[in-house]
Amino acid sequence: MSVDNWKRAAAHHAAGLVKPGMVVGLGHGSTAAFAVERLAARLRQGALSDIVGVPCSTDVARAARLLGIPLTTLDEHPIVQITIDGADEVDPDMNLIKGGGGALLREKVVATASERVIIVVDGSKLSPHLGSRFALPVEVVPFACAVEARYLESLGALVVRRGGEAPFLTDGGNVILDCNFGTIESPHELAARLNARPGIVAHGLFLDLATDLIVGDDRGVRHVRRGASRTEATAQ
Amino acid sequence: MSVDNWKRAAAHHAAGLVKPGMVVGLGHGSTAAFAVERLAARLRQGALSDIVGVPCSTDVARAARLLGIPLTTLDEHPIVQITIDGADEVDPDMNLIKGGGGALLREKVVATASERVIIVVDGSKLSPHLGSRFALPVEVVPFACAVEARYLESLGALVVRRGGEAPFLTDGGNVILDCNFGTIESPHELAARLNARPGIVAHGLFLDLATDLIVGDDRGVRHVRRGASRTEATAQ
Repeated sequence: MSVDNWKRAAAHHAAGLVKPGMVVGLGHGSTAAFAVERLAARLRQGALSDIVGVPCSTDVARAARLLGIPLTTLDEHPIVQITIDGADEVDPDMNLIKGGGGALLREKVVATASERVIIVVDGSKLSPHLGSRFALPVEVVPFACAVEARYLESLGALVVRRGGEAPFLTDGGNVILDCNFGTIESPHELAARLNARPGIVAHGLFLDLATDLIVGDDRGVRHVRRGASRTEATAQ
Repeated sequence: MSVDNWKRAAAHHAAGLVKPGMVVGLGHGSTAAFAVERLAARLRQGALSDIVGVPCSTDVARAARLLGIPLTTLDEHPIVQITIDGADEVDPDMNLIKGGGGALLREKVVATASERVIIVVDGSKLSPHLGSRFALPVEVVPFACAVEARYLESLGALVVRRGGEAPFLTDGGNVILDCNFGTIESPHELAARLNARPGIVAHGLFLDLATDLIVGDDRGVRHVRRGASRTEATAQ
């Protein structure tokens, strides 16, 4: 079974948790995209009705619209019942690194506005410590790019501007600095430092936000709820 | 003597602290504008040379360019020797509320990158406690406007979107929520909460950033340095 099949299996399990009438946060990225497809299929089949989606990027908005999922905004629906999103790295406390797809700001806003945040990943995203497998994406306003890059280097990161000479720009018109800190010993302390920097608009540390983790791998699909240890996971 | 004259006197004193060869942060707003005019006059008179300015808004960039002050960016000069900026409210610890002019994000980035931050105000801006005279400006991404307004209300603020139905937009394309908290008892605690919200790009609490305060009022100009109590101020 391929990684794509594992992602799809996890995302389909998550889509099955969406109930009629819900406001649903739609994450950006390849795994979350499988959930969007599945939600659209359930709507078409009549297994689901009356949901509205809050898209986390212009890309996912376009895809959802093409698939026939009604969309809304946080202005219209500031409380989201359930969000399904991917992650680039997940530690045993269900803390995450996200932002590989560049939609971290909106994803974090939607996750923060959500009652339940379901993270869907293939097993390769699990990690003993954040930072050991994935560089931390940090979104900065272009005006502050050089000063924030210097600051991030002063914290010990190897900093690479995404896109190099032709910088990648986020939906908000900002730049991403991919910051390799190696293993991040104290994610909360690092997050507080980054939060305090005026030129940093968002960073990829998603701490204490995920409520559910759904992992697909060669053993099948596991669903872990926050507070339950991984060995107590509901196997499916 | 009018308020404008007091502002001008304070700003001229600050402009006199700029030395040849310095990178100078140029604040936004009516008081800082007097400093920009004075710097330009000193350049024309030959009393100053070889400075470059880092403007905190497109407005001040335009004004400085018209007046003949050479400009640069933080990418070219990530360390600023001296910044001259105004404030909307100043407490006895030299902490500030800024953002009445809407340029708070760039002003905070430039202040953070500066070795010396000189705040110029007329005496009406002095306040025993932040929040007692001025609502706190909070800059939010449009996507998160409703959820952040709800959050700010949950902290006890009366929240008004600047510009109402025709929202004011910052240089970064964001919205300003003017938040009346009344007296802010713990500015550092409030700042940490606001820093942690993903949809809040910047807020007007400038804490531990000002190194010098120059106040113009009917008693003349007083220059207070951080760490010196106000009664030890150098009168001029």
